[in-house]
Amino acid sequence: MITLHHLNDSRSQRVLWLLEELGVPYEIAAYRRDAVTNLAPPALKAVHPLGKSPVITDRGHTIAESGAIVEYLVRVYGNGRFAPAPDVDGDDYLQYLHWMHFAEGSAMLPLMLKLYVGRLGEGGAPLAPRIDSELHNHFAYMNAALEGRSFFVGNDLTGADIQMSFVVEAGATRGPVAQYPNLLSYMDRIQARPAYRRAIERGGPYRFDQARRPG
Amino acid sequence: MITLHHLNDSRSQRVLWLLEELGVPYEIAAYRRDAVTNLAPPALKAVHPLGKSPVITDRGHTIAESGAIVEYLVRVYGNGRFAPAPDVDGDDYLQYLHWMHFAEGSAMLPLMLKLYVGRLGEGGAPLAPRIDSELHNHFAYMNAALEGRSFFVGNDLTGADIQMSFVVEAGATRGPVAQYPNLLSYMDRIQARPAYRRAIERGGPYRFDQARRPG
Repeated sequence: MITLHHLNDSRSQRVLWLLEELGVPYEIAAYRRDAVTNLAPPALKAVHPLGKSPVITDRGHTIAESGAIVEYLVRVYGNGRFAPAPDVDGDDYLQYLHWMHFAEGSAMLPLMLKLYVGRLGEGGAPLAPRIDSELHNHFAYMNAALEGRSFFVGNDLTGADIQMSFVVEAGATRGPVAQYPNLLSYMDRIQARPAYRRAIERGGPYRFDQARRPG
Repeated sequence: MITLHHLNDSRSQRVLWLLEELGVPYEIAAYRRDAVTNLAPPALKAVHPLGKSPVITDRGHTIAESGAIVEYLVRVYGNGRFAPAPDVDGDDYLQYLHWMHFAEGSAMLPLMLKLYVGRLGEGGAPLAPRIDSELHNHFAYMNAALEGRSFFVGNDLTGADIQMSFVVEAGATRGPVAQYPNLLSYMDRIQARPAYRRAIERGGPYRFDQARRPG
């Protein structure tokens, strides 16, 4: 049985969602952020030395890092869904590779900079123009990529959407998503999926779930 | 012919190194960082809308994001080398997935925070303990993973080493690598490889090349 080590309001929400999309049995081992520091609890260090979430255990393996977990789960349980065939001449496959790595390799950095530097108040002000410029550089690019499309790759949900979902959701709270209509409608679309709603029910409240927000 | 759009002192150095390891013909389109701001020049925007490096063009495709480029090049030109077989029960493959995503998905964040927040001087001081703690969390983990090993995965160089090389190199300049002997010897080992030296010759001076440093 797959166990998802799940930290509230974290990147593990996207793995929980993927597990529901895959329709496989799994268990949740739940961890709560510290109410004061917002940090992950030390108990996660016992699961994996980095002490971060998500981590899954399955079939004797312990796998950390969202991208690796998504690739593993899709390969083992996807039955050919959720990823294009690995055709190096196919645009879908090349786009899949791109978004799988872009999510954490590019898009999350300005969001994390904004989160951290925001804690400095006025002391962080000199970095604000650069951070805002990079946020718009990345989110405008993502918005353009979704023009006329429902998903980041091809015509169906893939692991790339799972990876990108957290970027868009975090960008709606801390970033400029409100200014990008394709990203707003994308977020509405993925969050309305039955599997996404089941993941919320299983995992408990998620701060980036728009259904929690008034209006 | 492959074209590497190469920015000096950037993540594109690892792609240049991979191209030399693969032994395939390629051309370099060279871009220089601004001498004052250290930013990439606007000309990179004409290659890819994000305006970042690395980007490659090959066989009619334009591919951005280091992880995607490495996966593409290894798959097209690796002839079975530089990546383990995709066996979801094999430790090598699972480790490969992990390090391919860990490099940019986890390890680079505290380095980039240190770089950015360092520009704030005293204004950034409140974040220093957290950033230092996260640097050691990640670099101690990497150091432990290399105990008794020459490479991050299996017994030969793989794409995971290509991805991780920039993390270790940046961590030697901006991070705590000097305190981690396995990481120091790993960096010496990869930088001594003939293909790595050829990449320096082709691409020009690289600030993270230890051969440039005295003693």
